[in-house]
Amino acid sequence: MTHWVSDLEKLLPAGTRRDLSDAYITEPRGQWSGSAGAVLAPRSVDEVSQILRFANARGIPVVPFGGGTGLVGGQTLPGGTPIVLSLERMRAIRAVYPAENVLVAEAGAVLADVQKAAVEADRLFPLSLASEGSARIGGLLSTNAGGVNVLRYGNARDLTLGIEAVLPDGQVIHGLKRLRKDNTGYDLRQLLIGSEGTLGVITAASLKLFPQPAASGAALLAVPDPAAALDLLALALARGGVSAFELISGQGLRFLVEASLPIRIPLDPVPDWSVLIDIGLGPGGDPADWFNALFAEAMEAGLSKDGVVALSEAQRTELWAVRESIPLANRAIGAVVSNDISLPLSEIPVFLEDCKARLRAMSDVRINAFGHLGDGNLHYNLFPAPGRSKSDYAHLSEALREIVTDEVVRRDGSFSAEHGIGRLKVGELERYGDSGKLSAMRAIKTSIDPMGIMNPGAVLR
Amino acid sequence: MTHWVSDLEKLLPAGTRRDLSDAYITEPRGQWSGSAGAVLAPRSVDEVSQILRFANARGIPVVPFGGGTGLVGGQTLPGGTPIVLSLERMRAIRAVYPAENVLVAEAGAVLADVQKAAVEADRLFPLSLASEGSARIGGLLSTNAGGVNVLRYGNARDLTLGIEAVLPDGQVIHGLKRLRKDNTGYDLRQLLIGSEGTLGVITAASLKLFPQPAASGAALLAVPDPAAALDLLALALARGGVSAFELISGQGLRFLVEASLPIRIPLDPVPDWSVLIDIGLGPGGDPADWFNALFAEAMEAGLSKDGVVALSEAQRTELWAVRESIPLANRAIGAVVSNDISLPLSEIPVFLEDCKARLRAMSDVRINAFGHLGDGNLHYNLFPAPGRSKSDYAHLSEALREIVTDEVVRRDGSFSAEHGIGRLKVGELERYGDSGKLSAMRAIKTSIDPMGIMNPGAVLR
Repeated sequence: MTHWVSDLEKLLPAGTRRDLSDAYITEPRGQWSGSAGAVLAPRSVDEVSQILRFANARGIPVVPFGGGTGLVGGQTLPGGTPIVLSLERMRAIRAVYPAENVLVAEAGAVLADVQKAAVEADRLFPLSLASEGSARIGGLLSTNAGGVNVLRYGNARDLTLGIEAVLPDGQVIHGLKRLRKDNTGYDLRQLLIGSEGTLGVITAASLKLFPQPAASGAALLAVPDPAAALDLLALALARGGVSAFELISGQGLRFLVEASLPIRIPLDPVPDWSVLIDIGLGPGGDPADWFNALFAEAMEAGLSKDGVVALSEAQRTELWAVRESIPLANRAIGAVVSNDISLPLSEIPVFLEDCKARLRAMSDVRINAFGHLGDGNLHYNLFPAPGRSKSDYAHLSEALREIVTDEVVRRDGSFSAEHGIGRLKVGELERYGDSGKLSAMRAIKTSIDPMGIMNPGAVLR
Repeated sequence: MTHWVSDLEKLLPAGTRRDLSDAYITEPRGQWSGSAGAVLAPRSVDEVSQILRFANARGIPVVPFGGGTGLVGGQTLPGGTPIVLSLERMRAIRAVYPAENVLVAEAGAVLADVQKAAVEADRLFPLSLASEGSARIGGLLSTNAGGVNVLRYGNARDLTLGIEAVLPDGQVIHGLKRLRKDNTGYDLRQLLIGSEGTLGVITAASLKLFPQPAASGAALLAVPDPAAALDLLALALARGGVSAFELISGQGLRFLVEASLPIRIPLDPVPDWSVLIDIGLGPGGDPADWFNALFAEAMEAGLSKDGVVALSEAQRTELWAVRESIPLANRAIGAVVSNDISLPLSEIPVFLEDCKARLRAMSDVRINAFGHLGDGNLHYNLFPAPGRSKSDYAHLSEALREIVTDEVVRRDGSFSAEHGIGRLKVGELERYGDSGKLSAMRAIKTSIDPMGIMNPGAVLR
C-alpha cells in the first residue's frame, strides 16, 4: 500500500497529505472505526480530480470526508480506508450574490460559516441542524441533510441550485449554475445529492438564499394529542410564515429533569404533548398578532388550552433550548434503539398508538417521540425503564427496532427520513426497499463507478 | 412490423390499441411529424410494464405520449414511431389527502383536472401554464414543466413527492410516497423527472398541495428599466407572498395592438418595461395594503412612478389577460426565432443590452423579451421589422439564434429554461453542454435503457 501512497503524494502539492487522526476514522457515536492508508486534503477541484483518476485506475477505494458528523456510518470504512478524501481545505465561500439570493460555497465550508456569510449579506441560508458548527456543505449535500426549517425552506436537495462535482474517473461536472430553471438534460445534481459519496465527490455548490424575516417569534403550545397537533399544523400553515413545527412529548420534557439539564420547562403541568411553532414574517407582520389569532382559533377548535409565546429573541432562544436539549437528555439517558422515521402526516397518530402498543407488549421501554412533525419526521427513540439500564435490553433491541420499522414501512413511511443509509441501514434498504428502485440504483452505480471505488459498502453492498 | 403489433395486441386487453390520429404524430407548431406502428393506451401500471417488457425484448422503440403539448419535439419520432404509448386512459386522481397537502394522480390526468381536484379539497396545486387544459401530469413531470408560479412554489420537480414508474425492462418503481423527507437511496424520482421519457415511463405521481391563499391581488407597475424591475423584485420578495413576477416589454404591449387583440392596456403611455406582480396572502393579509406599501417603497427608490392595482378577481383576471395575450400576439405576428432562456438574475440587464446590440448590428429584427423574471426565465423572441415578413429572415435565423444562445451561455445561463431538450435542442446540448455531465448522462442512459428503446433521439442522440 505504501508504494501507491508515495506515488500519489508525488502528484500532489506538498501538504495535501494530512496526519491521520481519530476524527477521520471514527464516527460520533463510536459505532464504527477503521484505519486509513492516507488522508488527503486537496485544495481544488483539479486536485480532487487527480486523486480520483489515480484511485480509479488502480481500483483504490476512496471515502469522501466532510465534517464527520453523519449518524449512519457513511464516513467510515470498517476494516480500513485506503484514501480518506477530506474536503477540509476547500472551505471558501466563493461568491455571494444578494440580488440573486445565491451563495456559492466549496464543499469544505462549515454550515455555520455559510449561515454567517448569508447574514452578512442581509440574507438567510435556512439549513439548520444540531451539528451546524462542524458539518460541511459537501457532507450535508451528499446526505441530503434536513433539520428544523425543512417545512418552510426544504432540505439540502431543495436548497441547491447547482453543484460542481468530480466523477470517479476524474471527469468534472461544472454545474455551478445560479439558475432557478434549467431543463437541459438529466438532473445529475439531484442524483449526486443524497448518494452519500457513492457516485462521486461534490466539490462546491450554488445555494439558495432567502430574505431574512422582518419579525420572528416562537410559541410552545400544549395539545391534547398528536392528532390535535396535526390540526393545529394545518391552521398554522394556512396563516403562512411557519418556519418550524416541532412535536415534543411529555417523556422528552421529563427526560430534561431526569438528566438534570439546566432547562426550565415553561408549561406547568408538563403536557403529554406540545408543539414548538417558529415563525418568520415579512415587513409589517406582527408575531404577537399572529400567535394570538392562531391561539384563538386553536382554543375555539379545542386544540390547545395552554401555551407560552416568545416574542423577544431571548425568549425565543429559551424556547428553542427546550427543544434542542431533548437530544442531549436522550444521550445522557442512553437510548436502547434510535429511529429517524417519517410517515404520511395523517398516519402519525395511529402509528404512535399502534407502535406503542406493540412495543409495550414486548417490553417496558420508555418512548420518546419528538421532532419535525411539520415534515412528518419523528425521532422515535426507546429508553430503559426507570432503574434499568441499556444493557438490560441488549437481547431485545433488534426485535424492538424491527417493530418500529415494520410499523413505519407498512404505512408507506421511511425508515431513514433525514440521516441516510450509510452503512447502518444497508440491510434495511435491501429488505424494505423497492426492488425496481434497487435494481436501477445498482445499474447507475455500476455505470458511474464501474471500479467501485467510491465509498464502497455505503448505501449499496 | 405488423406481426409484432398483433402479438403485442394479443397480450393486452381489447381496446388498448387506439386508432392512429394526427395528434399522436405531429407537434403543436408543426415542426415534426411522423407515423406510428401502433398507438397503445394502457389502463394500468401493469399493462405499461407488459408493453415495455415486450418492446425491450425485441428492441422496439417506444415514445411515451401525454398531452402532446411539448414545444421541443420530444413527443414525436420523425421517420415513424413503432409504439406510441399514450397515458390518456390512466387519468384517475387516485387520492386526495387534504390534511397532508398531498394528491396522487395518474400520469394521464390533465393538469386542469388536478388543479380542480385540489380546489375541491380547499387546496391549491400551483403548477400553472398556458397548456394546462390539455397537458398531462406524466408529460409535465417528464419535462419538468415550469410556468408562472415557479417563483413561489417551484417547478414540477419541486412539486413532486414521489412517482410510480416503469423502467425499460418492465420493472416497476413503486415510489408513490407521501413523505416530505425520505433519505433511502438515490433519488430516482428526480432522475426520471426531466428525463423526457428517455429512461422510463412515469405512470403516477404524488404531488404537493398548498393552502389556498386567503386573499389575492395583482398589479402592473411601470419600471424605468430591467435593473429597476430586479430591485423591485427584491423589495417584493422581502414582503413575502409573491406568487408571480412577470416582466413585460413595451414591444410586447405594442404587439397586442398590432395583432388587434381585444386587450386594453391599462397604462398610458405604454411603458417600455413593466412588471406584473401577483400575490397570495394568508388570513388577515390585505393585498391593498401590501401593494400600497410596496409602491411607496418603489416610488421612494425611484423604481416606479405609474401602476395599476387589481383587487377584485375580475380586475386580476384582466391584468393577467394582458400578460397571457402576449404569446398569442407573438404567434399572430410570427417569430423569426423563439428562445426559452434563463440567466442569473443580476446578468439580465446587461444581457438584454448586449444581446440587443449584437442582434441589431446584424439585422432589423424586433425583440420581445418577456416572462418569468422572478425565475430569471425570459422568452426572448425575435420578430420581423414592420412591413417585412418572416421569410425575409430565413437566411439569418440560425445566426440570430446563435447570438442569443452565445450571450446566454457565456453568462452561465440556460438555453432551455423550461421547455427541455426534446429533439429540437439535441445539437445545442452537445455543443454547449458540460462534457462531464453529458458523459455521465450517456452512462446512465445506457445502464437503464441498454436496448435504447425509450424515446430514442430525444435528449441524447
